[in-house]
Amino acid sequence: MYSFRNDYSEGAHPKVLKALTETNLEQTCGYGLDPHCARAAELIRTLCAAPEADVHFLVGGTQANLVVIEALTKPYEAVIAAHTGHIHVHETGAVEATGRKVLAVPSPDGKLTPALIESVPELHSNEHQVKPAMVYVSNTTEIGTVYSKAELAALRACCDQHGLLLFLDGARLGSALACSDLTLPDYAALTDAFYIGGTKNGALFGEALVFSRPREDFRWYMKRRGAMLAKGRLLGVQFQALLEDGAFLDAARHANALALRLRDGIAAQGYSLPVESPSNQQFPVLPNETVRRLQELGYEFEIDHAVDGGHTQIRLVTSWATPERAVEDFLRDLASCK
Amino acid sequence: MYSFRNDYSEGAHPKVLKALTETNLEQTCGYGLDPHCARAAELIRTLCAAPEADVHFLVGGTQANLVVIEALTKPYEAVIAAHTGHIHVHETGAVEATGRKVLAVPSPDGKLTPALIESVPELHSNEHQVKPAMVYVSNTTEIGTVYSKAELAALRACCDQHGLLLFLDGARLGSALACSDLTLPDYAALTDAFYIGGTKNGALFGEALVFSRPREDFRWYMKRRGAMLAKGRLLGVQFQALLEDGAFLDAARHANALALRLRDGIAAQGYSLPVESPSNQQFPVLPNETVRRLQELGYEFEIDHAVDGGHTQIRLVTSWATPERAVEDFLRDLASCK
Amino acid sequence: MYSFRNDYSEGAHPKVLKALTETNLEQTCGYGLDPHCARAAELIRTLCAAPEADVHFLVGGTQANLVVIEALTKPYEAVIAAHTGHIHVHETGAVEATGRKVLAVPSPDGKLTPALIESVPELHSNEHQVKPAMVYVSNTTEIGTVYSKAELAALRACCDQHGLLLFLDGARLGSALACSDLTLPDYAALTDAFYIGGTKNGALFGEALVFSRPREDFRWYMKRRGAMLAKGRLLGVQFQALLEDGAFLDAARHANALALRLRDGIAAQGYSLPVESPSNQQFPVLPNETVRRLQELGYEFEIDHAVDGGHTQIRLVTSWATPERAVEDFLRDLASCK
Amino acid sequence: MYSFRNDYSEGAHPKVLKALTETNLEQTCGYGLDPHCARAAELIRTLCAAPEADVHFLVGGTQANLVVIEALTKPYEAVIAAHTGHIHVHETGAVEATGRKVLAVPSPDGKLTPALIESVPELHSNEHQVKPAMVYVSNTTEIGTVYSKAELAALRACCDQHGLLLFLDGARLGSALACSDLTLPDYAALTDAFYIGGTKNGALFGEALVFSRPREDFRWYMKRRGAMLAKGRLLGVQFQALLEDGAFLDAARHANALALRLRDGIAAQGYSLPVESPSNQQFPVLPNETVRRLQELGYEFEIDHAVDGGHTQIRLVTSWATPERAVEDFLRDLASCK
Repeated sequence: MYSFRNDYSEGAHPKVLKALTETNLEQTCGYGLDPHCARAAELIRTLCAAPEADVHFLVGGTQANLVVIEALTKPYEAVIAAHTGHIHVHETGAVEATGRKVLAVPSPDGKLTPALIESVPELHSNEHQVKPAMVYVSNTTEIGTVYSKAELAALRACCDQHGLLLFLDGARLGSALACSDLTLPDYAALTDAFYIGGTKNGALFGEALVFSRPREDFRWYMKRRGAMLAKGRLLGVQFQALLEDGAFLDAARHANALALRLRDGIAAQGYSLPVESPSNQQFPVLPNETVRRLQELGYEFEIDHAVDGGHTQIRLVTSWATPERAVEDFLRDLASCK
Repeated sequence: MYSFRNDYSEGAHPKVLKALTETNLEQTCGYGLDPHCARAAELIRTLCAAPEADVHFLVGGTQANLVVIEALTKPYEAVIAAHTGHIHVHETGAVEATGRKVLAVPSPDGKLTPALIESVPELHSNEHQVKPAMVYVSNTTEIGTVYSKAELAALRACCDQHGLLLFLDGARLGSALACSDLTLPDYAALTDAFYIGGTKNGALFGEALVFSRPREDFRWYMKRRGAMLAKGRLLGVQFQALLEDGAFLDAARHANALALRLRDGIAAQGYSLPVESPSNQQFPVLPNETVRRLQELGYEFEIDHAVDGGHTQIRLVTSWATPERAVEDFLRDLASCK
Repeated sequence: MYSFRNDYSEGAHPKVLKALTETNLEQTCGYGLDPHCARAAELIRTLCAAPEADVHFLVGGTQANLVVIEALTKPYEAVIAAHTGHIHVHETGAVEATGRKVLAVPSPDGKLTPALIESVPELHSNEHQVKPAMVYVSNTTEIGTVYSKAELAALRACCDQHGLLLFLDGARLGSALACSDLTLPDYAALTDAFYIGGTKNGALFGEALVFSRPREDFRWYMKRRGAMLAKGRLLGVQFQALLEDGAFLDAARHANALALRLRDGIAAQGYSLPVESPSNQQFPVLPNETVRRLQELGYEFEIDHAVDGGHTQIRLVTSWATPERAVEDFLRDLASCK
Repeated sequence: MYSFRNDYSEGAHPKVLKALTETNLEQTCGYGLDPHCARAAELIRTLCAAPEADVHFLVGGTQANLVVIEALTKPYEAVIAAHTGHIHVHETGAVEATGRKVLAVPSPDGKLTPALIESVPELHSNEHQVKPAMVYVSNTTEIGTVYSKAELAALRACCDQHGLLLFLDGARLGSALACSDLTLPDYAALTDAFYIGGTKNGALFGEALVFSRPREDFRWYMKRRGAMLAKGRLLGVQFQALLEDGAFLDAARHANALALRLRDGIAAQGYSLPVESPSNQQFPVLPNETVRRLQELGYEFEIDHAVDGGHTQIRLVTSWATPERAVEDFLRDLASCK
């Protein structure tokens, strides 16, 4: 039976493994100063239509978040995030560990809006309060929702008005790219920093961080937090493999398509999916007994929360590696639980 | 021409790549809670003859050092290290970034001794000074020297006497295992924590950290510093591949053997190698003109330091991947520089 | 005209100044290791009926909060506080600067309850989330409300049940002691740490921190954060002066009595005071025009928030130094604003 | 018998106490935004001939050091200090607690020189090492030596050449002002930041920090580290009292004069004072038996270190409060120990 627990349950996309194998015995400089990283960065600048962009490769998302936030803010500054934001709830205080406060704003759908940002009391603070300096958003969000271009542009305008930086966590940017009107050039133009998540879309690991303007000292920040991979070229090789002929987007499209098939199939069986997600995470509400039966059949997934005494919202995640068959099996077995 | 710049210039040992490929489409839990990590940990406990040991896998050495030091010491405590210690000179203040002070002791050969430890003025400090709580050593050291069992046992006794923890950075533990009388059970018995370095001995990346006693909350420390790999099983797979049939030690023996051939060949040509290194790093002193000629021929290596106006000490590093031919070529070309 | 802006607008209670003057030329050890601090600590242990208690003196509240929280929690642990808690909103991220996350809970009256604590999602967290380890409460709270003995006992029971420490910020403990059924022995028995605030009740500065159990290494934490006063005896001298013959409680009673006179006088003029405060902070809602007139007359106070287009909630604070006349004048002038 | 243990053994200079008493019932704003702090700052700008200077008042030296270093450097930057520097050996890692590394340079006399600064290996570092950004010096130094104007100017030139900030810890600036050719305008012109130490020269507490250029956000850094005194005006009142009619310099002259009398008297009795100190700290070497006798007579002083089996170097410190009689008594009693 299949695990819909996450989009990082398998290893790497075959193109990634192939590229790693083919380049295995090449000798290169360490720490990301090699030709593979250079080519991957150039490719990303081209795809982003951002010739000035500064590209860095990091191993994981929490690492990327903490190093970026530390590098772009002063010690007494703070980051505004949705209360569901990954940095607020799922990183064991990694941002606070750099001394920065996260100002969490309750959000109905995991997204921030100008109005939510402007509701932050500290926005007009004095020296007795932290000073908001950055807005952190995720796309797709932690609950699968997706920003439109108009929404991200509105956040940019709001940030400009209040002197805030805009940082976009793209751990699931592939899925977002495959289901919204936002393109890589949009992300580069509208944010101060964002990353293209490899871990959750076909890489063994890796996040490609894009700064709209050069950050000359960012490598110091990386090294100081243990975020500089010795064999850095592994990151360049993987992103080249994923990006140079469209495998990255294809992988995300595949994941999204299967997620929507799950969504539609589940809805067709009469179950509700309260979160409107067009992306690779779906959150159906099922009777507790059904959840148990699916688990007994061997399906794996996360329990999101108990909706009421008799129902549970679960999370189903698809990936580049999910076989169509797994989705069909799941829907058939779900139907049999009735 | 070959690069003797480092032991992480290539990708992974073929067994590692093979294992990653073979397990690629398996679905596992993330974050190191998978069966591969469990098996690799069990294998390490067996090899260490330490059934109680707590094993964790981290991506890199700086990361391992900072998380271990933060987890095992209190904020006001300090770590004693040789002035050449990696944490003191090559980690961009990563340990200080956790708020801990490094107390550096000048050491003639990169190693610490009980006498050097006892020379630390803070050893009998009060609340106006940091409190030494840990001794940090590397084996092999940053300059290729190696501890004997008697030396490590003496450090252990000294640490016990002064209430200090002993932490051993094993980024190059493979090379040390292959050229000293210290075995894995010795490391487990004599240190409070040490790691088996994969990055510099055949893995794509990865350090296997061994605590002599369980550290129940170490995973919190890891996650908080962005040091928990999403696809954690990649670490387990690699260490299984390297350790289960001796590839790890074979790789290190190969590296050491070629380093000694370099050493002996260089010495036979009349050059001095002031650092007595039995391991995979060698530090010959060559005329500046010779250094330039070797570089023009395409050899890569690090400049260690200028010895005098006419001579430079360079560093040559071999690895599991270094071909014998590269060593022969180098020695021949060095001879031709005369 | 008088300033009701704060309870630290004046210098020190006359007894404090007298004691500082009388002891001025004594020579003592620095850093709080002098006989005055020893006697003040002993006095506090006696007043708290806590012969085992560990007493330390710090200069200010933010300093006390950050050092206590750092000393009593591990890096990955978190502190639960009301969303109005001083550490959450008025300390410029001082707690986050030690790497700890504050988990803020919306509270209707500035107080925490077992139910509010148990609503914290992280209470049953795993290594991807911070681990709540401490509950932080203030008494009186930041909005003047006060815990009863039953309420604090319920928090203690809740903390015991969930393995949480209970830390009470007593910046305004004097005012609380003077208007609730909680006594110093209760605070010592029910909390793991609390402090007796001097700054806001008659001292030039100073907070007397009481740990229910000895904290042998707390002085290291203090010094490391710059929180150890060179002429530490100044703190001991002040607390002796305030506590040895009841001046501390008398001062607080005076402040409370005048605050209640303000409250009753304002209410009698038909204005509302939505926050039910029995302590030295009162929050009347006045017409904007009235607020302006009072300011023109020279009264000073803080604007709490705009209630609606025509009304503002202000904060009036009394202290040991507030003359009765100032209250009478204020009430008369308020009446004249009608 | 007298204690020569430190220059903060007594309370405050009579002028300070008088000023605190006279202003005691004034009502002012908190946190250093009051008229007394404004006047003291203006007075300091005038005395420094630095109308643009930014002046802040902090309670103590460790606090001042840690906040200044955090505010003026980036996380990956480092501070160069003499190995005897207060921040390196006597602040329990307070600077490291802000994440900054201290690069300690062995210095024969507690002073730094351009040559010593240029000996720091990290001066031409890359991203694997911390980046020196600031030079920290103390005047007088921790062992009583004093910089000349030429020496400080040379440090300034060296800092300019290497892009380093120059920060001068003036915990004992009074003593330095009274015995060297450096004036307040020199300090303001030659450093980026320095402070005028009150604690060790007549204040109850307080350090007046002077930035040569405005630091608009420094108050955020202060508050975040708990370094903003609620009744901030206490600092302004004290510095006004000490500086407005020369009491500060008179106090330091008194301390120095008595220290030199001690020095000369001790030397006349045939004892050596290896540290050439013109300031208020003297370091005679005495036979162990003599040290014991002096202690038995009730004299207090710090043991600096054991010189050999039979001799000990002690530290004698004088202050504004030291009576001439205490010095005469000491010399007489010392003579009687022969």
